[in-house]
Parts: sequence; structure tokens; C-alpha cells
Amino acid sequence: MEDLIDTQSEPDQRGIKIDWVGISSYSHPIQIHDKSGIKQNTVAEFSLAVNLPQECRGTHMSRFVEALNESPISMSVNELHSIPQQLLGRLSAKHSKVSIKFPYFIEKSSPQSGALGLMDYEVNFETVANQDEVDAKIVLKIPVTTACPCSKAISERGAHNQRGVVTYSVRFNDTLWIEDLICLVESCASSQLYSLLKRSDEKHVTEEAYDKPVFVEDLVRNIAIKSNDLPNILWYRIEAENFESIHNHNAYAVIEKR
Amino acid sequence: MEDLIDTQSEPDQRGIKIDWVGISSYSHPIQIHDKSGIKQNTVAEFSLAVNLPQECRGTHMSRFVEALNESPISMSVNELHSIPQQLLGRLSAKHSKVSIKFPYFIEKSSPQSGALGLMDYEVNFETVANQDEVDAKIVLKIPVTTACPCSKAISERGAHNQRGVVTYSVRFNDTLWIEDLICLVESCASSQLYSLLKRSDEKHVTEEAYDKPVFVEDLVRNIAIKSNDLPNILWYRIEAENFESIHNHNAYAVIEKR
Amino acid sequence: MEDLIDTQSEPDQRGIKIDWVGISSYSHPIQIHDKSGIKQNTVAEFSLAVNLPQECRGTHMSRFVEALNESPISMSVNELHSIPQQLLGRLSAKHSKVSIKFPYFIEKSSPQSGALGLMDYEVNFETVANQDEVDAKIVLKIPVTTACPCSKAISERGAHNQRGVVTYSVRFNDTLWIEDLICLVESCASSQLYSLLKRSDEKHVTEEAYDKPVFVEDLVRNIAIKSNDLPNILWYRIEAENFESIHNHNAYAVIEKR
Amino acid sequence: MEDLIDTQSEPDQRGIKIDWVGISSYSHPIQIHDKSGIKQNTVAEFSLAVNLPQECRGTHMSRFVEALNESPISMSVNELHSIPQQLLGRLSAKHSKVSIKFPYFIEKSSPQSGALGLMDYEVNFETVANQDEVDAKIVLKIPVTTACPCSKAISERGAHNQRGVVTYSVRFNDTLWIEDLICLVESCASSQLYSLLKRSDEKHVTEEAYDKPVFVEDLVRNIAIKSNDLPNILWYRIEAENFESIHNHNAYAVIEKR
Repeated sequence: MEDLIDTQSEPDQRGIKIDWVGISSYSHPIQIHDKSGIKQNTVAEFSLAVNLPQECRGTHMSRFVEALNESPISMSVNELHSIPQQLLGRLSAKHSKVSIKFPYFIEKSSPQSGALGLMDYEVNFETVANQDEVDAKIVLKIPVTTACPCSKAISERGAHNQRGVVTYSVRFNDTLWIEDLICLVESCASSQLYSLLKRSDEKHVTEEAYDKPVFVEDLVRNIAIKSNDLPNILWYRIEAENFESIHNHNAYAVIEKR
Repeated sequence: MEDLIDTQSEPDQRGIKIDWVGISSYSHPIQIHDKSGIKQNTVAEFSLAVNLPQECRGTHMSRFVEALNESPISMSVNELHSIPQQLLGRLSAKHSKVSIKFPYFIEKSSPQSGALGLMDYEVNFETVANQDEVDAKIVLKIPVTTACPCSKAISERGAHNQRGVVTYSVRFNDTLWIEDLICLVESCASSQLYSLLKRSDEKHVTEEAYDKPVFVEDLVRNIAIKSNDLPNILWYRIEAENFESIHNHNAYAVIEKR
Repeated sequence: MEDLIDTQSEPDQRGIKIDWVGISSYSHPIQIHDKSGIKQNTVAEFSLAVNLPQECRGTHMSRFVEALNESPISMSVNELHSIPQQLLGRLSAKHSKVSIKFPYFIEKSSPQSGALGLMDYEVNFETVANQDEVDAKIVLKIPVTTACPCSKAISERGAHNQRGVVTYSVRFNDTLWIEDLICLVESCASSQLYSLLKRSDEKHVTEEAYDKPVFVEDLVRNIAIKSNDLPNILWYRIEAENFESIHNHNAYAVIEKR
Repeated sequence: MEDLIDTQSEPDQRGIKIDWVGISSYSHPIQIHDKSGIKQNTVAEFSLAVNLPQECRGTHMSRFVEALNESPISMSVNELHSIPQQLLGRLSAKHSKVSIKFPYFIEKSSPQSGALGLMDYEVNFETVANQDEVDAKIVLKIPVTTACPCSKAISERGAHNQRGVVTYSVRFNDTLWIEDLICLVESCASSQLYSLLKRSDEKHVTEEAYDKPVFVEDLVRNIAIKSNDLPNILWYRIEAENFESIHNHNAYAVIEKR
């Protein structure tokens, strides 16, 4: 079949280079090495792309899949550079871009009874590479409890609270564990979430959240302060969104370090 | 072009009838007559289907769209039968099935300051028709606040609460207004939601929710009791789902009248 | 902490039993034993529920999570009964209901070059149990190619085709492998999908799809016929939805064995 | 109630300013003036935000809703500045940010029979404002047909094709009609989509798409060339994503004018 026309490799006369071309919504099983040394098995959704110079008509889409198939994907936070660098060679490209989004689990003890349960988080490794360097970001979605300071201050009893989600994106040097980033964010909310809470635990998190109300503004500011204190965080973007229990819309706030 | 082959109309030898065939995810603007006599303009997502007897190879998909195009769609809860009946004729079918899902708005005064705001709800008109009758259901998604009775009872202060959503499906005789069904459901929750709350209103809903905690089980039971009291509700299915503020999973409960 | 009030265990006077109460959208890693004897690691979304008699105010939500935590979840299609039966005991219930939805992978060779790639499918194990029996369903979402017979018949060249998805639900006796069900469905479409296709493979699937056009009606009928021929399939529901390449809406068809 | 504590207005000592704070997922009916002079009724999802200086603890969330409630929302593409400017005053802010996302309809005649049908598109008005200027973008999601040039070139018959979606973002001066932007994009695809096609129309679009195959790379380049030719388009970002009929993943390409 070697004489089938290679339409993609035709020259292109339009004089327009393409920033990114590749595949999206590609599912593939992976292993992630967590802080405790365990290799977590999970399933990732990949987006993979490269630049395309103006003189080429098309990229070779099958090579993205081949690149992932070449070896089992088992990686740690220190190895985010490997897949984007592999794409540069595989697709003869100057720039490559990779997003690897997956559910990630942390075992937690509940705060009073010590009951063990797995909490799930969404992690996304986003990288852009060229020959000389790889720009890597970790993007975490961390669900939290937020109790409203205004509601508490003005009400004789109770305070509205709700689930919120913090989207925490960081660039970093040195090793940075997902577990530590999640811990940082959770310490800034009214309470962290748990998958398993017995009655004594529920009392604990209810009172803790009531005692530590945070606006969505407080939440992003507190995370920014703690992030500023960590020298290995070079850049961050913090977005918090509260699924307000008293409204059908959400409240949100964003801080980006520039 | 009248001599183009009509593949759909070919006879079929496989001896298998098809329960439903049609189109889905079809967007179209509509008007809904609300209780106050106003015609609300909104945008609906339609699914339209008919049965197909075993001797026909295919249906004529374009006729579903033609049926909706024939006249502007402006309807009240009393006219749910019109589109499914139109399909029976248009597609020479014995059975037809229609789903019309759309956002619907109700203007509310906030409980203390009287500030006016529009609350949005998802409404779905689901009908199945044959020559003799139309089986019509209204399915409403109604967001509410729920405060947890256990959390309140065991905690010295506060109670976890959250947004939840009730999916309330009813079959009925006589006229039944969407507004009245929503009102019934909202009266069974810890608090209803509002789009606009001033500080005095926020105090009111916080205290009201704290004073009236409901489990997801309480919520569906309270709605069942009120539904049983209304003679024009012939059947219901009540599902409540709470986006728990202390967990990353939800709690849910279902009661169906049989 | 044993003296904390147990609000859920209070008696209930409303006289209304609850069909289902439990948790939804709960993420947990699992292992599934595939036909080749390999244990696939994947991540499932669980819904777990039990009935609640009229005299009890609430269920104990934490016990659902405890039931899943008690032992690593590693199961085959023959063991669908284990989790729902465990819930009956754990929650002192008469009825339990479990849904376990997860991505599942099958390694395929491409049809000409033999290139290997992983195709992903969505699998859902749905069970309802009581003391005496477990009613188990497997629900698969299988993406396929469909080329339109009408478009081919009336056009001088080409035929519109598109991705579609078949939702295939079966009840069965004996062992039934997910791989065999997927194979059955894929053989009824214009072509199956692959994650990795080289140029010779793309020629093959293009011509194969053009040579074997199927309406959404043909697709569900062909699957019904093959399902009828398998004695270990007791019941099925076949739904196909085509993401039409010439419309912004979808075409769908449904056959259910009664 | 004027003596309720105003927690949001407390001074803040953390020294951290917030880029954006506001509300998201807020539903509200609107009218959009289309090119033909008609006011289309539709329903929008709003996100509204302002900056918050470091010395303020919180914003006043209810004022965002009040701003939308003050007058019926009926606007044309020339009036994108009005809501963000209103927010600056309402919330005493230096910067504001608004996103208004809604379904939009265009009536089309089918290419042969002239049958009339409404095609739906997703439109998003995204604006960022300060006292001096408003930066406005229109973001359109335009579904199209793409037939694969490689598949056509190597196959003896047929060519795989599929639905794709182009996300076309533009900044502009002068008036720019949504209808013209959609027309520009649709002219670059293998075929545009229609809601209503009779058999003669289906023949037309099938043959047209087969005669004009485009890679996802061709599609974005063709749109870039046509955009470059329009002097009132100041900036663009073109993203195309094809829901490949032969894969379960998508192909995508992006060009941004810098």
C-alpha cells in the first residue's frame, strides 16, 4: 500500500502557519506516581498538538496516537516534559502542546473517628514544549466547603454554606506534589471535603465551617498568600466558584500572579 | 428531482418493528403561556419520534422538522397534545413521542425587601400519543436549599446546607400551572432560591433554612404528601439530589406513585 | 461520641415509604476482569441506593461508602451481584440498586496494517437486588460509523456519514463478555471505529463504510436480529443516535425486546 | 434593616487585589437585533465580574443581578459596551468583564428545494471594559460538514466525513453582523448544515461535500484568509474540531492572529 497518495504531505501555498493541530478527547489508561510512592492507575483524557509550518498542508494525526502507544504511560510530576518532547521528534515539530486530564485519589482520615476514605480530584498536566524548554502547569480542581461570612454575621442562627470548587493552576520549579497543593487549598476553605464522615466527624466539619466562614474573595486571597510563601511556585492562577445554596447561579473570583 | 430513489420507503423483510425513530437535540424558539397570561419567549430542545412498522425500511426525518415549522409554536400546558397528534398524521404513525425541554422564568419578590428577580427553572413536556389518547407528563427541575437535620442536631452551631435539585414529574387532569407545581416543591425545602437577595433577605433565608432542616428523604416525602392532596395530580415521580457541601458526591432519594 | 443524636434513626409518622435513597456521582477506582484474563484498572462513577420503609426517617449515607471501602473492588461480569447483595445486609434493606459506570478499553488491530490501538467504551453495570434475586443489566455505549443509504443512492458520488453511538442494554444468563457484545454491535454498523489507522487502513474503512450504508433504523434492526440469535441474551434495549454530518441535530431509533 | 453588618464592605489587610469577582451561570431572557431588523427572543447565560481593590474585603453580588434587572435587555452587536459600562458604575469598579452566551437562529433556504428551516448557533459576547474603552469579542460556534481529502484521495469510492464545529472569535471595528461571520465560516467548510433538507437537497450537499473535501487544517486556513481580507476584523482566533467518523477522538486545529 506504500503508493497511496500522502495528501497531508502536499505543499501548501496559502502562506498561513497553524498554531496548533492535533487530536482531542482521546482516552487512555495511565499510571501516576503519587507522593506516597504508589503508582495510581487512572484513565486520562488527552489533547495533543503541534505547530504546522506554512509550507505543509497537514499533520499526521495517527502519529499522536502512536506516540502514546509506544510505551506504557507511567509518570510522576517530575516527568511532565517527556510526552511533549516525544511529540517534537515524532512529528518533526518546533512546538508541541499536551493536556493530560485525569481523576486522582487521596486517602484521607476523617477528622474525629479516623475513618478512611478516598477523595477524588481532577488533575490536568498542561505542557507546551520546544527544543529548548518545556513550560509545565499543573491544574487542579479541588472541591471545598464555603460558609458565608455575611450570612453568619447578620443571622441569629446558621449560615448558608455550599460546595465550591477551586481551580488552582501553578507553574513551579523543583518537585511539587499534587497532595501538597491540594492540602494548601483545602486549608484555606471553611472545611475540606471527605468521602466518608461518621456522625462525630459531621459535627466536627459543621462547626469548623461555621467557625471559619470565607467569601469566595477570602478563599482566593488566602490561597494567594500561601502560594506567595512557597518559593517553588513560580506562577499561579486561582479561581474559586461557589455553587451558592441560596441562588441558582454561582459566585466566583480569580487571582492570577503576573 | 421527483425521480430520486426513495430508499426510506423500501419494504423491509427483517420482520422487526421499531419502537421509536426520530430526531433529537433539535433547537427551536417557542412561546409558553404562563399562569399570569404572559407569553414567555424561550428556546426549546426537542426530541420527536414515531413508531415504525416492520414492513417499512425507514421514516422520513425531514417531516419532523416540517411539522415544527408549519406554524409558530406558542402553547400552554393545556395544549401538550397538539404536537404529538400532528406527528401522527404527518408521519402516518400509530404512536408518537415528543419531548420539549426549555428554560422557564418566574418573577419573585425577595422575602423581606421585596426586590424583584427572575428565577430560572428547567421544564420538560413529555408526551406519548396514539389516535385515541395522549399521555402527557410535565417534568420540572427545581433547585432548592436543603439544610441537614442531623448536622444541626449534633452540632453546637451551624448546620451544613447546600443547593439541591428536585426533579418533579407529574401526570394530571384539568389544567395544572407550572408555577403552582414549583410553589408546591419549594414549600417543602429548607428554603426556596432567589436570583436577587438583599442583606435583609439573606438573613431571612439563612434563618428560615436553619429553622427548617430537611433530609433528602424528608424533602421527597413532603412533596409526596402535598401531591397526594391535589386531586388533579394523577401520578408523580419525585427525585431529589443534594450537592452535599461536605462531600464530593451527592445524596438522592426517589418516590414514585404507582 | 456515642451519645450524639441519631436523627436518621428517628421513627417517621408520615406513612410514606421511599423507593430509593442513597448516593450518586461517587468516584472510586476499580478493576474489571476482561475476556483475555487481564484485570483492567479503571475509575468508576457509582450510584448506590436502597429502599427505605415508611417507619424510618432516614438511611445511613456513610454506610454506602463503607461498603465500597471494605475490600478492593475487582470484579468480572459474573460478579455483578456482589455489591448490591452487600448493600442489603449493610443497610438492612429489602431492595438495593447499584450503577457502576466506567471507561473500558479493548485493544484492536487496524484492518490492513495491523497497527495496535486501544479503543475506549463506556460500560455501566446496573443491578437491582432483593434477598432472592439480582436483576443485572449491562449497558454499553459503543461508537460506530454510519453511512447514509439514501445519500449514497441519490448522489452521483460520496455519501454523508458520521459518528454515531449505540447504547446497548442487555439482561443475560450465563457469562457474557463485554468484548462479544461490542463485537456484535460493531458488526452491524457501516464500520467500527479505531484509535489508530494508517493510510491503508483509512482506505479500508472508507470503502467498507461506503459499501455498507445503514440507516439508524437498519442499525438497530441488525443488532436486534443478532441479539435474538443469542440464547443467553434474555432481554435487550437498543438505542442508536447518529450525529448527522449534514444537520445540527441527531437521528435516533430504539428497539426494546419485551 | 439598615443596621445589618455589611461584612463585604470591611477593609481588607491582606494586601491582595482580586482580578475578577462576580457571578456565573446566571440565566436571563434577552432580545438580540439581527441583521434583518428582527428582534430575536432568546435566553442567555451570563457571567459578570469586576475587579476588587486590595483594600476591600468583598464585592456586592446582588448588584450584578440588579444591573441586569434595571431595564429589559434588548441589544445589537453595536451595543456590546452597554452592560460592562453599566457595571463599572454600579459596582464602583475600574474593570468589568461580561460574557453573554445564547442560542441564535438563522432562517435558511435549503440549496435545491428552497425549503425553509431555522439553524441554531451558539453566540457569546465577551467584553472587558474600563473607563476609557471596551474590548469586545464575538465568539461563535458554527457547526459544519467536513469531508476528508486524504480519505477521498486514497479510496476508490466514498470519503469519510463528519460534523465539526468551528469556534470563531473576532475583535472588530464598525458594525459586524453575526450572519456575515457565520456565512464566512460556512463557505470554508465542505458544506454548511441545514435543519431541513429534502431529498434533492441531500443529493446536493452530499455531492458538494465530496467535491470540496477539507482537512481541519484547510478549514482554519481558509477562514484565516477570508478574515484577513475583511478590514473591519482586527483580530481573530479560529479553532476547528472534527468529530471524526472513523475515530472516537476528535481532530482540531487553531490559528490566532497576533
